[in-house]
Amino acid sequence: MCTAVAKINAPKLGEPYLLTPGPLTTSFEVKEAMLRDWGSWDDDFRAMTREMRSRLLALLGEERAEYDCVPIQGSGSYCVEAMLGSFVPEDGKVLVLANGAYGLRAAQTMEYLGRDFHLVNKGDYLPPRGDEVTAILKRDPDITHVLIIHCETSSGILNPVEELADAAHAAGRKVLIDSMSAFGAVPLDTSRVKYTSMVSSANKCIEGVPGFGFVIARKDEIEAAKGNSHSLSLDVYAQWATMEKTGQWRFTPPTHVVAAFLKALEAHREEGGVEGRGARYTLNRDVLVEGMRRIGFETLLVDRWLSPIIVTFFCPADPKFDFVRFYQSMKDKGFIIYPGKLTVVDSFRVGCIGQMDEHVMRQVVTAAKQTLEEMGVATAAPSQAALDERKKLAA
Amino acid sequence: MCTAVAKINAPKLGEPYLLTPGPLTTSFEVKEAMLRDWGSWDDDFRAMTREMRSRLLALLGEERAEYDCVPIQGSGSYCVEAMLGSFVPEDGKVLVLANGAYGLRAAQTMEYLGRDFHLVNKGDYLPPRGDEVTAILKRDPDITHVLIIHCETSSGILNPVEELADAAHAAGRKVLIDSMSAFGAVPLDTSRVKYTSMVSSANKCIEGVPGFGFVIARKDEIEAAKGNSHSLSLDVYAQWATMEKTGQWRFTPPTHVVAAFLKALEAHREEGGVEGRGARYTLNRDVLVEGMRRIGFETLLVDRWLSPIIVTFFCPADPKFDFVRFYQSMKDKGFIIYPGKLTVVDSFRVGCIGQMDEHVMRQVVTAAKQTLEEMGVATAAPSQAALDERKKLAA
Repeated sequence: MCTAVAKINAPKLGEPYLLTPGPLTTSFEVKEAMLRDWGSWDDDFRAMTREMRSRLLALLGEERAEYDCVPIQGSGSYCVEAMLGSFVPEDGKVLVLANGAYGLRAAQTMEYLGRDFHLVNKGDYLPPRGDEVTAILKRDPDITHVLIIHCETSSGILNPVEELADAAHAAGRKVLIDSMSAFGAVPLDTSRVKYTSMVSSANKCIEGVPGFGFVIARKDEIEAAKGNSHSLSLDVYAQWATMEKTGQWRFTPPTHVVAAFLKALEAHREEGGVEGRGARYTLNRDVLVEGMRRIGFETLLVDRWLSPIIVTFFCPADPKFDFVRFYQSMKDKGFIIYPGKLTVVDSFRVGCIGQMDEHVMRQVVTAAKQTLEEMGVATAAPSQAALDERKKLAA
Repeated sequence: MCTAVAKINAPKLGEPYLLTPGPLTTSFEVKEAMLRDWGSWDDDFRAMTREMRSRLLALLGEERAEYDCVPIQGSGSYCVEAMLGSFVPEDGKVLVLANGAYGLRAAQTMEYLGRDFHLVNKGDYLPPRGDEVTAILKRDPDITHVLIIHCETSSGILNPVEELADAAHAAGRKVLIDSMSAFGAVPLDTSRVKYTSMVSSANKCIEGVPGFGFVIARKDEIEAAKGNSHSLSLDVYAQWATMEKTGQWRFTPPTHVVAAFLKALEAHREEGGVEGRGARYTLNRDVLVEGMRRIGFETLLVDRWLSPIIVTFFCPADPKFDFVRFYQSMKDKGFIIYPGKLTVVDSFRVGCIGQMDEHVMRQVVTAAKQTLEEMGVATAAPSQAALDERKKLAA
């Protein structure tokens, strides 16, 4: 695993590491790329847009020639909405596979769109499975699309995307993937996962700064999406058509963020692409999880479902544990962690992505250990309710 | 006028000045503010968001306490769509006053929304007038809102926003303003211009970098907008409600762009706010127009309608004039200009906004003069068709 350790850039100016699932800690070089202005109409910037689109497509599998990449200004959720609004026709119906906040947000988006959907809500973290999808699709012939969340960052679970996509594909339905926090570090090979469209964003595993995301979709799907979008701003077809014709974004692009992203793509390639990036994140996770378990913390998920993106830990049951104090003390030690999103038990999350390596993850564990000691927490063990919760995964 | 000349920061690294209406040339300090990462959930960033919102509101008139500021990720057009989708009810009807691309884009947005509108299309630059608005509103009681483009950057015209808003207000209709390229340099005092909502963006007269815009609206209008938006991402009410409750943006904000914008707001205040900024831009325009006229160029607009934002010049009629060559030669000399958007005659535009002062504008004129000489263009005078076109303004 040692080959996966790439050169990373520690944050400067004493700023804390962001152990969050994006915005994340980026390299100084990535940020430095923002130190000039570009005219969005000018050739230089058009060339940057072109290069970015082709470099992203190069991360796909062998069938990449059938896909195109359409950047969309705004956050990742804008891209999910753009994908749903552009590719699901008014008389379409989406099977939304949810096990956390991002799946539920996709369902909420469908409500805004006023288009039909069937929500499978697995709760905080239980993975949807292929058999279940097969059964639902058999029962409901109106369903035209299946939406899969690749890594649900609410819990950190890596959903079985290939199994789910296979089930949908076998039933002749189109697959849409929200790969926001996974793309670039977890393989999403078009020859193995049969999707028609997916979305991700600049400030996740490619390690850029936030400001836009991108839709990757089959060209025939993009062409067929003409006139389908509910929104001018989020119309994937219109953005694509303008970009193909003029090389420009339809509306003002976040030029500096694009420049930073190009630099980030360069570093991604130098690190060995999806494989290299994924290996570093996996090592980050392994070192983090092993260390946190050693000092008594328990993960929400059993190993099989742990993603290399972000890990949920139960809060210690000890009444002396106070999350607000824990957060602040970890921040004082140089690490910004992330609150939990579980509805049933208290938890927090630690991201494994961004400009961090195994050495940083060891420091995170040390900081957590010290903080527990400062708070007088005797053991990091979670409540029985938390452990009972986890048993559901085995059921 | 000399007091208006603020300290400006020339671009570094030999990069050209952007004589475009945004993205524009920003100061190095503004860009330097992007050299660190922020956690969007963290207190530090929440404080930055809070400060930004209150500083923007401070630019309004005395009635500012009745308004609130809601930043929206994406480009300025996203904000226009967010404003229309959030504040115009499904049974509302908008009078869209268009005299260029941005007015027409607002009408197109209404088509996407599937909500009723009446388009007044004045062509490339003729200003809509108050009497006309009064007459239309009298004839059509279904119209609930009037959309005014403050500065239409297609031609550079500064529309008579106060006159138009007065006409709408007198008829009991609500006023929505697209002040994208004017806000921060042209006064929009709520005690004089009776609007319920307006939009602008980070990369215009406040001189930030692109990545988000903002909606400023009466608080009662925002509260009444609940459930009205066609789009989850562009729902002004939902963004406001979350921000009020948690201090956070609903979805990942462009953290670096926000940091740059805060720095830009600081410089805006130091320059004397809207008045000081407006004075520098006005001087930029005066020096530019006077210089360009001296070497034979003619402006599309008569002086009365010239904005301090961007100026349209007719292309010389001389057959030796070639815009592509002109653009490239100006760029080689350090100035990126902007192509024209007129449908009838050939033109180009030169922006007056961004980190530029009268000295830079004199260099622009010198570069234009040299370029004409290099091209062998004997006179910069426009065609008779161009001059005939301009006569329409007097009619």
